[in-house]
Formats: sequence, C-alpha cells, structure tokens
Amino acid sequence: MPDYSLLEAFPTPTESPFVIEHVAEEFTSVCPKTGQPDFGTVTVIFEPRGGKVGGVCVELKSLKMYLQSFRNEGIYYEAVTNAIRDDLQKLMNAKWLLVRTDWKGRGGIRSVIRAGGGDVPGRWM
Amino acid sequence: MPDYSLLEAFPTPTESPFVIEHVAEEFTSVCPKTGQPDFGTVTVIFEPRGGKVGGVCVELKSLKMYLQSFRNEGIYYEAVTNAIRDDLQKLMNAKWLLVRTDWKGRGGIRSVIRAGGGDVPGRWM
Amino acid sequence: MPDYSLLEAFPTPTESPFVIEHVAEEFTSVCPKTGQPDFGTVTVIFEPRGGKVGGVCVELKSLKMYLQSFRNEGIYYEAVTNAIRDDLQKLMNAKWLLVRTDWKGRGGIRSVIRAGGGDVPGRWM
Amino acid sequence: MPDYSLLEAFPTPTESPFVIEHVAEEFTSVCPKTGQPDFGTVTVIFEPRGGKVGGVCVELKSLKMYLQSFRNEGIYYEAVTNAIRDDLQKLMNAKWLLVRTDWKGRGGIRSVIRAGGGDVPGRWM
Amino acid sequence: MPDYSLLEAFPTPTESPFVIEHVAEEFTSVCPKTGQPDFGTVTVIFEPRGGKVGGVCVELKSLKMYLQSFRNEGIYYEAVTNAIRDDLQKLMNAKWLLVRTDWKGRGGIRSVIRAGGGDVPGRWM
Amino acid sequence: MPDYSLLEAFPTPTESPFVIEHVAEEFTSVCPKTGQPDFGTVTVIFEPRGGKVGGVCVELKSLKMYLQSFRNEGIYYEAVTNAIRDDLQKLMNAKWLLVRTDWKGRGGIRSVIRAGGGDVPGRWM
Amino acid sequence: MPDYSLLEAFPTPTESPFVIEHVAEEFTSVCPKTGQPDFGTVTVIFEPRGGKVGGVCVELKSLKMYLQSFRNEGIYYEAVTNAIRDDLQKLMNAKWLLVRTDWKGRGGIRSVIRAGGGDVPGRWM
Amino acid sequence: MPDYSLLEAFPTPTESPFVIEHVAEEFTSVCPKTGQPDFGTVTVIFEPRGGKVGGVCVELKSLKMYLQSFRNEGIYYEAVTNAIRDDLQKLMNAKWLLVRTDWKGRGGIRSVIRAGGGDVPGRWM
Amino acid sequence: MPDYSLLEAFPTPTESPFVIEHVAEEFTSVCPKTGQPDFGTVTVIFEPRGGKVGGVCVELKSLKMYLQSFRNEGIYYEAVTNAIRDDLQKLMNAKWLLVRTDWKGRGGIRSVIRAGGGDVPGRWM
Amino acid sequence: MPDYSLLEAFPTPTESPFVIEHVAEEFTSVCPKTGQPDFGTVTVIFEPRGGKVGGVCVELKSLKMYLQSFRNEGIYYEAVTNAIRDDLQKLMNAKWLLVRTDWKGRGGIRSVIRAGGGDVPGRWM
Repeated sequence: MPDYSLLEAFPTPTESPFVIEHVAEEFTSVCPKTGQPDFGTVTVIFEPRGGKVGGVCVELKSLKMYLQSFRNEGIYYEAVTNAIRDDLQKLMNAKWLLVRTDWKGRGGIRSVIRAGGGDVPGRWM
Repeated sequence: MPDYSLLEAFPTPTESPFVIEHVAEEFTSVCPKTGQPDFGTVTVIFEPRGGKVGGVCVELKSLKMYLQSFRNEGIYYEAVTNAIRDDLQKLMNAKWLLVRTDWKGRGGIRSVIRAGGGDVPGRWM
Repeated sequence: MPDYSLLEAFPTPTESPFVIEHVAEEFTSVCPKTGQPDFGTVTVIFEPRGGKVGGVCVELKSLKMYLQSFRNEGIYYEAVTNAIRDDLQKLMNAKWLLVRTDWKGRGGIRSVIRAGGGDVPGRWM
Repeated sequence: MPDYSLLEAFPTPTESPFVIEHVAEEFTSVCPKTGQPDFGTVTVIFEPRGGKVGGVCVELKSLKMYLQSFRNEGIYYEAVTNAIRDDLQKLMNAKWLLVRTDWKGRGGIRSVIRAGGGDVPGRWM
Repeated sequence: MPDYSLLEAFPTPTESPFVIEHVAEEFTSVCPKTGQPDFGTVTVIFEPRGGKVGGVCVELKSLKMYLQSFRNEGIYYEAVTNAIRDDLQKLMNAKWLLVRTDWKGRGGIRSVIRAGGGDVPGRWM
Repeated sequence: MPDYSLLEAFPTPTESPFVIEHVAEEFTSVCPKTGQPDFGTVTVIFEPRGGKVGGVCVELKSLKMYLQSFRNEGIYYEAVTNAIRDDLQKLMNAKWLLVRTDWKGRGGIRSVIRAGGGDVPGRWM
Repeated sequence: MPDYSLLEAFPTPTESPFVIEHVAEEFTSVCPKTGQPDFGTVTVIFEPRGGKVGGVCVELKSLKMYLQSFRNEGIYYEAVTNAIRDDLQKLMNAKWLLVRTDWKGRGGIRSVIRAGGGDVPGRWM
Repeated sequence: MPDYSLLEAFPTPTESPFVIEHVAEEFTSVCPKTGQPDFGTVTVIFEPRGGKVGGVCVELKSLKMYLQSFRNEGIYYEAVTNAIRDDLQKLMNAKWLLVRTDWKGRGGIRSVIRAGGGDVPGRWM
Repeated sequence: MPDYSLLEAFPTPTESPFVIEHVAEEFTSVCPKTGQPDFGTVTVIFEPRGGKVGGVCVELKSLKMYLQSFRNEGIYYEAVTNAIRDDLQKLMNAKWLLVRTDWKGRGGIRSVIRAGGGDVPGRWM
Repeated sequence: MPDYSLLEAFPTPTESPFVIEHVAEEFTSVCPKTGQPDFGTVTVIFEPRGGKVGGVCVELKSLKMYLQSFRNEGIYYEAVTNAIRDDLQKLMNAKWLLVRTDWKGRGGIRSVIRAGGGDVPGRWM
C-alpha cells in the first residue's frame, strides 16, 4: 500500500531558480471497483525552496520505491494523484509542485489528472 | 438519443487546485442532413469546485454511457458540442469546463469545435 | 444488419496486373456479449480478374454502405472479418483477396484479424 | 473564380463562448506568374457572435464549394488569404476570425500566411 | 502466479486461411533477481486449425486474465515468453504461433524475445 | 485532358541495374460522377532498359506537365492509374514499371491502386 | 557572396493584420574556420506595414536568390542570422521581423539562432 | 573532470535582440553512487549582452570540449546542471541563460532539470 | 578496455525456436584518430542453440558491463562491431548471431555496420 | 568538380560477412539546366571483399570530401548516382554495392534513384 515512509529527500544544492521534473512511465495500481489493473504515467514537476532556507528535493530512488508501493493498491485515478501531491508536498514544502497522471484508456476513454500545490505557473498546469 | 439521466457524479475528493481531462476517441453520431455517420473525438476538461462547497465530478463510466447515447442521433457538430457542455455544466457547475470535439474529415474539410463554460483559462481554449 | 445486397460491382477496366486497396477507418459494430460498441479499421485488398473474363471490382460507395450496415449489429471480431471476406469473394471471385481488421483496444488488448481468400501473396498477409 | 455568392450561413445556436475551426487540406489555385498550380491547406478559426444578436456561422458545405471556386484562379498566396478573410468577415462579422494558409514548398521555400480580422487572441495568431 | 486454467478457447469459426494477432501493451511481472517490476508488451500471433478438424482460438478475455496472472510472479523475460508460448500451444495446437515480448529498458538495454511454435512464416518471425 | 504528347524521354545513361522512383504528391483530377475534385499522390517506379538497346527514361519536367493535364479531367481512380501506366509504358517500354496512386479519403474510405507493367519484383508491388 | 541587391519587394496588399512566414529548408554556407559546408533551415517571419503607409513585403523568388548567394560564403552562424535580419529590415522596415536559423549538428551539437527586429511578440521569439 | 578553463568566448557581434540555443545530444557523465554511466542531452539557451557593453558569447567548439570534460566525472543530475549554469554565467554574464538537461531513464523514471540565471522569459522555462 | 571476461552466460531454457534481441542505446567509445567520443546504439540478435545440446545465452547485466568496457577505448566503428560479434560468438556459439551498430553522425555522415556470424536469415541482415 | 582522387580505402579488417552503410544527408549539387542548387541524401551500402583476398573499404572522411566535390557541379540526378556507384566500385570492387539518392522535391515531385553494382540482395534494392 502507498507508503509515505519510503520517501527520502536531500537538501536543495542551490539558491538559484531551479525546476525538477521526474517522469515515471511504468506506474500501475488497481481499480477498486473492478479489481482490474490500471496503468499510467506519473509526472512530478516542482521548484524546490533553496537549501539555505531548509529546502529539500525528493531523492530519485526513494520516489521509485514510493510509486511502486501503489502496485497492488485498490485506488481511483483522482485519489492516486492527490495522494502523491499531498505526500510530496508534506516531504518538500516546495515553492510549487504539480503532479500529472496520464492513464491508459479504459472503455474507449483515457484520462489525465493534474493536481497542483502552491502557486503553479500557468504554463505548467 | 442523448440522455442526461445517464450522467452520474461523485463529490470532489479535495479542495486543492485540480484539473480533470477525459478524452473519448470513439464518439459517433449521425449527420441529420445526409444520414451518414459522423466520427470524432470528444475531450472534456474541467476544474471542479471543492467537495466542501458541494463540488462534484462526473463519473467516468456514466460519461461513457452518456456519450454512447448519441450513437444513432441525427445531430450537427455544433449541437453535439453545446449539448455536452450544457449537460455537464448542469451536472457539475464546475469552476470552468471546456468541451472540444475533433471530427474526422468530410469532403476534404475537418472541423474542431470548442465550447466553454465558466472562466476557461486561455491556455486551454 | 450486414446486408450483402448493398454491394455493387463494375467490370474490371483492364487485363493488366492490378491491385486495389480500400481502407475504411470509421468502422463500428457492437459486441454481442457486452452490448458495447466496437470501433476499428477495415482494410480490403484484392487483385480482380480481368474484365474480359468477367472480372469485377466492388464499387466504392456501395462498399461504404455495406460496411455501415454492421453499425448496430452484435457480432464478434472474427465473424466481422469472415463475413466481409465471404461477401466480397461471393461478389467478385477475385484472384485473391485479403480482409484485415484492426480493432481499438479493449481491456488493454488490441487485436488484428486477417482473413484471406484465394492465393494471397505472402507480402500482403 | 472566387465566388462570394457560394457562401451560406446559419444562426449561431448559442450565446456561450464558442470557437469553430475548419481545416481544408485540399486547396488548390494557380500561380498568376507561372501558371503552375499551387497546393495548400486553408484553416479558418473564428468566434461567432451569439445568435440572439444576429450572429451567424458559415455553413460547412458552402465553405467547401467556395474554396473550390479558387481552383483555376490565377492568384497569389497573400491575395488568397486576404480574400478568404474579407469574404468570411463580410458574411459573418465574427467577434474575431483568423485565416491561415500553409503552402506546399516551391523552389525549396514553403510559406505560411496568417490574416486576422477583429481582435484575434494572441494564442491563435 | 501464471495460471493455465484461466485460458479458454472457442471453436475456429471457419476453415479458410485466418491469422489472429493480440497485442497486450500492459503486461507486468517481477524480476526474480532484484524484485523490481518489469513492464512490457506481449504480442501473440497465430493461425488456428480449422473448426471442422477441432481447431480452437483463445478467448480474448480469458487471455487478459491469464496475462494478469503473471503480475506478481518473479520470472525472467525468456521464461515469460516460453511459458506463454507453451500454454497457448497446449490450448490451441495452432498451425503456427508466435509470442513476442518487448520489454521496457533496464540499465540502458531493452530486449525483445520471440518464441515460435509450429512452422512460423519467416515474415512474422 | 490527359495529354500523352506532353511526355518526353531521354536515353538511359547506363547499362547497369538502375531503378528510378518519382513521387508526385500534388495530383488532382475530378470525380466524373459527383464533379468534386479528387486529390492524391502518384508514384512511378521503373527499371529502364539500358541505353545501348534503345532504353529511355521519362523526363522529369515533362512528367510534371503530363500529370497536370489531368487537373480538370473527370476520371475514376482506376482509370487514372491505368492511363498513366499505359502511357508511360508506351513511352519507355521499361523492363518493369509500377504506378501507385494513393487517394485522400472520401466518405471515410481511402484507396490505393497499384498497376504494374512488365515483371514487377514482388517487393515493389 | 551575400548580395542585398537581389532582394525585391512588393507593396503590402492590405492594411489588416497580416503575418508572413517563409521557411527555406535548403540553406547552405561555408564555415570560415574549417572550410566545411554548413547546412540549415532559415525561417523568416514578419508583420509588414500596411500598403497605404508605404509598407512592402519581400518577393518570394528574390528571397530564394538572395539566400542562395550565401552558398559559397565563409560566414559564421551568428553572422548569417544577423545579416539576413539586417538586410530584410533595410528592405521592408516591417512592424517586426524574426529570423531563425536551425543548423544541422556539428561535433554532436546543433544550434538555433533567433534574431529579431522591431517589437517581436513573445510567442514568436 | 569539469574544466572551466576550456571555455572560450567571442564578443557579441550585434546590439540587437538575439537568442542562441545549443543542443548537445551526446552528453555523458557517471553516477557517483553506482558508478554507472549517465547519458543525456544538454541544452543551453541565452540572450547575450550587446558587444558594445562588453557582451560575449560562448564559442561552440570550446563548449563541446567543456561538456566532454564531464565524461568520467562522478556527479549527480542536479550538480551537472548547476555547474554548467554557473560556469557559463561566469563566462558570459548573459542577460539571461537557461540550462536544461534531459536524462535517459533509470529504473523506469526519466528526469529533466532546468536551471536559470538572470531573468529567463517564462516561455523558455 | 574491452574485456571478454565480463561476459557471462546461462543455459538456454528451451529447445524450441527462440530469438533474442538486445538493444543498447547508450554505447560510447573513442575515435582513435581524433580522440573525440563516438556514440551509438548496439543491437545484438541471435538464435541460441538448445539447452540440451549445451546452448547458452548471454546474461543481460554482464552484456551491459561488457559494453561499458569500451567507454574509454580508442577503436574504429568496424572494429567495435567485429569485436562484439567475435566475443559473443566465442561465448555462445549461437546458431546465428547479428551485431548491428548505428552511429551518431560525424561531419554530416552517419554509419550503420552489420556483422553476422553463422547463417543469419536474410530478413535480419 | 567530382574528384575520384579524393577517395581513399583501407583493407577490410575481417573475412566474416559484413555490411557497411553510410548515409550522407547533406549532399548538394547544381541542376545543369536551371543552375538552381539540388539537395539530397546519398546512401551507400556495400559488402566488402575480405581483407585476405585484397578487399578494401572506403575511408569515411575521404568519402565526405569526395561527396563535397559535387557541390558546384552541374549534373543530373541519374548522373550523380551512377558516378558515385562507378567511382566506389572502381575503388573497392565490393561483392555488391548500392547507391541510393533521395532528392528534395522540385515542382511538386521528389525522386529516388537506386543504382546497384554486383549482386545486390533484393532486400536492399
């Protein structure tokens, strides 16, 4: 099940403007209604606070392990997106953060969910 | 025929900024003039109101059934687009909502119709 | 329902080697099990017999009307493909004919069915 | 020759924000200098005025016939683009309208002409 | 764990030449060495024996359930491919059958495994 | 109207194996039934006879002018393809020659016609 | 060598907003350091002043001849871009003008140079 | 190891607005944790100060040699990006400068890092 | 330097026809003439001998380490390709094996080298 | 002018089957009729004779210089292709050799010329 404790962070190595984007194309969870697996891509984009004011960045391997913890979880698209946004903001308190999930089609409809935290610039939304 | 009663909604699961996009690539209706089938893609993008103030989101499977209800309806491109926009806004009263329909070419011309409700950010329009 | 009588043909206008390919990207029928619509592309490739020996070619508009007659028919992928192959060979008795159907994905699996009549060259199969 | 009288319109079916885009990929006219045929794509995008204030939208088939009337006309790229913009604005008096023509290359150079009418939003230009 | 009993078949509905291809883009299993999830696409192509001589075709939904049974199995690429080939040939005894697996990259290397049964035509291999 | 006299040829400049392919993406003619313009791509591929035995190749600019002579001709897909094949073989008597026409879609169906002369290698057909 | 005198202009045929884009994909010059040929694409975009206030547009064929005059010139990327910008603004005095050059890679690095004149809207830059 | 002394500059050849973009698709360094090589694309975009006020531009071949000096350096994604940004701004003191690094996937996640200096226009970020 | 001893193998897990393809897109070595790094993709395709007759397959991670051993080696394209072919055939004695290297362009020319061992089917070459 | 003396060769470093492909995407010559520049891609594919029987391979940089010697030569497509084939076969006496030239479009027609020497396998032609 989704496990916040898997997430680790490191201090932001600069005070200059800096945007990090991680794209995980191999995300999978389970539909709570049908029990069928869902597949999608999870994109996380954020601008960390500077290291001198305590800013941190999520560590890449820990993010991978955290995302894998959804593998056998029964959870809806919206809840996945909100959970990742909430957990990462709890970890990093970034200047802004955007989580975008792109789901493979089901029944001829494919969905994209975007959930922001902080003041996400319009061009990223 | 298009059937509003097929639409169902669930309460928005968060108060944070949140955008949902559904892309239905297997839409078909019938041209009222020629009786020939039309094919297109229907994209719905919206920002729901937060759950604590009564905001709701359209349920995915109900959206699929609703879109299928146009299958044998004789109806023009513009009317399809406006009908979906009106029905979904009636259901959700979203902060903003955009319906975009991309139609397969007819006679060497293909068309795209965009109909907004509420204050659609320029980047989506 | 699929209606053979909609098909029309015209005499092959030459005795020289000649291959015709029609690609209909807007095919739809209905799954007999779930009642859900299926969408796909139907490709027909054939080499007609020469006009002097009575060879004929399917007329394009009649092919369109024939394919539209499957619109509300409950029928499986394989049966669609075999029906089109059989009806077109009944009509044309072509030197060889190949019907290929490419279906939009269902449940994460998409299918392609190829059904031949006569001696289809390997490169087309 | 280009024939304004071929254009027909119908009343805008809504007062809500509404953008229509027609893309005609099979446009051809003739170069007045060389007599050689030119080929291109004509895109028309506009926001009609609402039907209650007399707003109208160009009818799709009449647009096709109008564009075909340039087939054997000797006319430059810029004149084609301006003529279509002027004729469609005369017909519709849209809130804004953009005509874009994309021409196949000649002598290693391909051209795109954009002509606006009314207050075209920057994102469309 | 991979479960042969999930597979079902139906009698081949024709005696004519006939090739079926199923492409499952959402396959996942687990690396037995690292415990990390593997993701890939499984393609199955076969020519069934005719129905009159007892030929059968794998049923699509049962194939989906069968492929899902690998989800939490620790198993190598080659073993996945051979297992599917063996199970499907046990089920169908097809004239020929090809299983192809395309795996997402690991450590900068991506792999494709092809395993045939019967006399697979060269063009498919 | 199609004008054979526009075609010119030049002696094949070598006796070695040699294949020439010309792709004309801006072909247009008129449908004899509806009067609507048709658009397509015409591809001509051939192996000329060697110059010492009187072999010739079609001259490029003359081919362009010849193809333009179909611009306002009412003629079916098959007849266009056969006419070009016959005229070019009359001109060149090539070892083999293939004419392929790819037509823009009409009514949701697009067509490809291939007409050969001489012993066209299978890989080109 | 680059020859300004090759450029010709014609009066802008309208007072309405109007943007012209020319894309020349077959540009070549020579590196002054190594003597090796450089290859790239030159894009010119501008909004001309209206014809009634003396506005002019560069004539297409003269632009082609002008660009060809760089063929054997030893000149750096930046100088090419600035020279074209300066020459075209000298010719047209456009409201704004952007010259963009996209160069084929050298030593694993490819470059894009953008040089503006007048008040280039941000979306073009 | 990364070697600032390899960088060379030349005076900006103009005072007009001017943007330079260099894309190096063959960047490689080494992960300091695993010792495994990392591969990516480094894009540098900047607007130099004018030559009359002492503005300079990085010389292309020196940039190549500088980027190659990371080849056997154990260094994280973020540090690579910040180092290049800092070194290039030290060299050029550009009006603004953006360094973007796109890394090949590792463990199913690929990353993009953007680091700006000066007032980077939003459209580039 | 290239190190054969890094290669490991495992017994072929089947006697059935079986083809394995590994694509390593992050290969780099050094040009012995210029000292500049070369980048390319190495593809290895082979049909192993069956396990019962002593057939083996190269182990994936050992292949990665082996390919990395070329990183700082000064070696030509042809020598890289032949060395990999020879080393892998020494290891596996496969029924047939093909090594293909696709190199990034140098001086406007990109190269592909294919080296086979055993009786490589034509379709792979 | 085309200069055979620029070509250099090195002994084939192996006796094993071996195919080399060089793709030069930046070829330019001049049309002898119009004086306009032509642009194209030249692809050379060959199987050299083994080094022990005196086989040689064309050296890459010398091939580049040789191709550049056509830069200001007035020469037709067919003559370019034949000249390169003849010069390279004179140099290498390869088992087989194929020269393919792909030309940018002129007047709406683009051409591909293939000229072989020796026994070119069908799949390459």
